[in-house]
Amino acid sequence: MNIDEFDARIRAVPNGGVTSAQGFMAAGVHAGFRKDPKRLDMALLVADEVCPVAGTFTQNRFCAAPVTVSRAHLGGVGYGMARGVVVNSGNANAATGGAGIAAAHETCDIASQVLGCEPEQVLVSSTGVIGQILDIEPFEEGIPAAADALSRAGGSDAALAIMTTDTHPKEYAVTYESQAAGYLGSTFTVGGCCKGSGMIMPNMATMIALITTDAPVRPETLHGLLRSAVDQTFNRVTVDSDTSTNDTCIMFASGKAAPMLDPIDEGSDAYQELERAIYVVCEALARGIAADGEGSTKLVTVTVSGAATPQDADTAARAVANSPLVKTAVAGHDCNWGRVAMALGKCGVAFNQEDVDIDIMDIPVCRGGLTVPFDEDEALRRFEAPEIVIAADLGAGDAQATVWTCDFTHDYISINADYRS
Amino acid sequence: MNIDEFDARIRAVPNGGVTSAQGFMAAGVHAGFRKDPKRLDMALLVADEVCPVAGTFTQNRFCAAPVTVSRAHLGGVGYGMARGVVVNSGNANAATGGAGIAAAHETCDIASQVLGCEPEQVLVSSTGVIGQILDIEPFEEGIPAAADALSRAGGSDAALAIMTTDTHPKEYAVTYESQAAGYLGSTFTVGGCCKGSGMIMPNMATMIALITTDAPVRPETLHGLLRSAVDQTFNRVTVDSDTSTNDTCIMFASGKAAPMLDPIDEGSDAYQELERAIYVVCEALARGIAADGEGSTKLVTVTVSGAATPQDADTAARAVANSPLVKTAVAGHDCNWGRVAMALGKCGVAFNQEDVDIDIMDIPVCRGGLTVPFDEDEALRRFEAPEIVIAADLGAGDAQATVWTCDFTHDYISINADYRS
Repeated sequence: MNIDEFDARIRAVPNGGVTSAQGFMAAGVHAGFRKDPKRLDMALLVADEVCPVAGTFTQNRFCAAPVTVSRAHLGGVGYGMARGVVVNSGNANAATGGAGIAAAHETCDIASQVLGCEPEQVLVSSTGVIGQILDIEPFEEGIPAAADALSRAGGSDAALAIMTTDTHPKEYAVTYESQAAGYLGSTFTVGGCCKGSGMIMPNMATMIALITTDAPVRPETLHGLLRSAVDQTFNRVTVDSDTSTNDTCIMFASGKAAPMLDPIDEGSDAYQELERAIYVVCEALARGIAADGEGSTKLVTVTVSGAATPQDADTAARAVANSPLVKTAVAGHDCNWGRVAMALGKCGVAFNQEDVDIDIMDIPVCRGGLTVPFDEDEALRRFEAPEIVIAADLGAGDAQATVWTCDFTHDYISINADYRS
Repeated sequence: MNIDEFDARIRAVPNGGVTSAQGFMAAGVHAGFRKDPKRLDMALLVADEVCPVAGTFTQNRFCAAPVTVSRAHLGGVGYGMARGVVVNSGNANAATGGAGIAAAHETCDIASQVLGCEPEQVLVSSTGVIGQILDIEPFEEGIPAAADALSRAGGSDAALAIMTTDTHPKEYAVTYESQAAGYLGSTFTVGGCCKGSGMIMPNMATMIALITTDAPVRPETLHGLLRSAVDQTFNRVTVDSDTSTNDTCIMFASGKAAPMLDPIDEGSDAYQELERAIYVVCEALARGIAADGEGSTKLVTVTVSGAATPQDADTAARAVANSPLVKTAVAGHDCNWGRVAMALGKCGVAFNQEDVDIDIMDIPVCRGGLTVPFDEDEALRRFEAPEIVIAADLGAGDAQATVWTCDFTHDYISINADYRS
């Protein structure tokens, strides 16, 4: 498949989100995890019938109870069949021991009764403060209320309900007409929503992301597609180098857009189309997380090329993206490439400093490891853009990697110094 | 040697510093690297005669020209014989290519003529902005002026002259009477000064530290003593996880306190006394760097015990110390142990969350991975202290490690967003 040709055919769905694909409904309600009655704090996403699902989860050893329970419901392999997922904000249900596991199971029980499925066909996810017992009562009223409110338009409320310190909901969807053998003329949709926005350096998945498609896919195939997309998108976002205890990314495939057709086979043209569409949605959502990082005013895209190995490229790009000194320089609109050089140099990857080129906002600022005179006024002007692009070429090979982050501002400090108060 | 018994005998030198040991003189002058004529910006430390010297330097691949030149003057092995060291602030002479190397050599040439020694017997170090050519002119007037001003009292001016964003100079010295065979009754002194205070996560040495002793030591022995102390002190400080291009720690041994005695042999009782004295000075200076980290209001000491291996303990302690979410919680006086748990869990070291205990300011806040109710008012009161102690026991072994850092405040952002302007 020609990716450029496919990208020209793929279309963003206006106001698209997690319910843009056929066969899904969602709702967001105020269940009572938060004090403010106007704030939505519980989301329910449901497929019309039990359908293939896949998930990826945090690698943090202090993993939250809902991660443990959802992993178990996916049979420990990351994929299976499920009907829906319940997400609450305001409490992470992490470091809560047996009581937390019990609360996660009870949530699945309540949802299974309301939806008429097995408890193992429900997944759960939580986000918020760590170390506080999760109250079950809000679910007892919230899940039936959410079930009553389920609709194709409910994706937006679901996106609102999973937010913590996010300043706005993050949703995206794309649609395309397949030109692949066996699926010619079928229109498939992939959509999703997610939340950031602190404790973000996902290691397997983002904080919370829900993705759906109406393409027909087997659970195991879906898992492979999701893992690949997560690895290239959510796992390349870092707000603060801190990995959440609750990272969860769940994807459902209803098959509703082509109910009479066989599941899409791995490696086929139809697979490649779907793979790309999932990537595009996840990339949009992942960039959304980075851009809305706590206190952020800028999306920062760091690309390292010319690395000796893909691992080196990734390590170097993360070193730049995680450097507080680089991130504060961006906040200060300071084209201070010395800090980029410092970050490249500290991370242990192989290169010679005399081979390094650095561009900031397409301005060559370092060539062969040496400073290049540049127009500071022009640099200041380019720093007004909403996305700051930092590109470094190590001159040590052919590998490259991109990582997304945000700038580091006073508001990050304010948000996190006062988080529990 | 009994360390407790030795620690009871060792004495801090009132207002001690890098010239407290016999055989050294120093000066700090305004040479012109900075605009403010009142600000000292060049330090000169000189031994009465050429004497043993050792150095440890940054591992950052973008290493600065003075690091390259000083390494060469120490024969590439980190030790040798030297007369003195010239340090400037205001310009790091990093990423400056051949012109930077030439400037560092020229600095040594000027100093060698003024001091009457070989250029190879002079070391150099620079700190400040990266990527700007280092002007040689300030050295041409500054080095003779500093040589004229050299004195035993000049250590304080030297400590002032090497500062960048430090809020105050950092100096410390100790003295002790040896009880070791062969040195009984000799009084030895170890002193030093250093600067922080941003781009601080040293990897071999701190940003800049100058240490002296009047004990008689061979160069190679001195190098072993210094490396061991640096590894246990300066290398355990992290302000912002960023490793400078210019980290340099240089130690001279004049032998002046016992000119008739043989050099101290490795492993002897005299060696162990000196080793401990160097450690005490370096620890005091290292803690001073952490406490004076950019924007800092608190010294934060993170101790991880019960780790499976020393490497695990170190990795986990650094993960906590480098976590922006932990550091902002300290800034906000928030006893938010969930963030400590998150940091322990993200770093890949082996433990089970149900075995983890966490204390903050001696308050048990987590036992067996679960929250322990604690008095929030009492916690707030303890957060008024200048040093915040976070202790985690992983319950996975016997290894432990301590790392020093500081809190993360609005002022860090202000200092670094506006650094070049």
